[in-house]
Amino acid sequence: MTMTDEDAIREVIRTWGRASRDGDLNAVVGLMTEDATFLTPGNPPMRGRQAFVSSFQAVSEHGRLEASTDVQEVVVEGRIGYAVTQLTVTMIPHAGGEPMRRSGYVLSVFRKQPDGRWAIARDANMLK
Amino acid sequence: MTMTDEDAIREVIRTWGRASRDGDLNAVVGLMTEDATFLTPGNPPMRGRQAFVSSFQAVSEHGRLEASTDVQEVVVEGRIGYAVTQLTVTMIPHAGGEPMRRSGYVLSVFRKQPDGRWAIARDANMLK
Repeated sequence: MTMTDEDAIREVIRTWGRASRDGDLNAVVGLMTEDATFLTPGNPPMRGRQAFVSSFQAVSEHGRLEASTDVQEVVVEGRIGYAVTQLTVTMIPHAGGEPMRRSGYVLSVFRKQPDGRWAIARDANMLK
Repeated sequence: MTMTDEDAIREVIRTWGRASRDGDLNAVVGLMTEDATFLTPGNPPMRGRQAFVSSFQAVSEHGRLEASTDVQEVVVEGRIGYAVTQLTVTMIPHAGGEPMRRSGYVLSVFRKQPDGRWAIARDANMLK
């Protein structure tokens, strides 16, 4: 059984969700390109792995993330692919209290790395 | 002088802005794929040309759109490309009064059509 590129991208999305939940920052960072750029409403673009790490650590101080993802499409052409995912993220505060829930769509662009692995390169997160 | 695919995509973005401003709905629709999908925060995906037409007409009843675009990158692989654009849209109400301004980033995926023209296929609009 060989995995198609589409399958491999779906696996990246699944692994991303699991690693985020587990707070496994190294695993998450390994799923993004060096120049990965994260776009969100009302914020400047977050560029590069180090910026992601800082943001992830800031969130992790406050709570634990649970993500539920529904991948709606994956399209691949050569070494580029894109995916549309419906995503719900729940942040469960360490200090107790009400979980915070946000949901919406994500448009992500993936790039096949020189070693053949797929990684997130651009990510537009429209969670609200 | 032949136009590169990157140039052609930049031209689609420019033409889109101009046609939107001029209220030239046919020109705008000609720049999107049949199955074009528009993603925005807090709304379900808007799929297909007809949905776009209805939305465009609803906005046009209220005002005129001025868009200022700054294309930050365009990457092409085969028949797929993506662009990150910084966008400011101002809606000038027909009835007078304060213009409404929204700005932010857009991640767009383009597809080369069978006739060789590039068209917007997926669009994640993070304007706020």
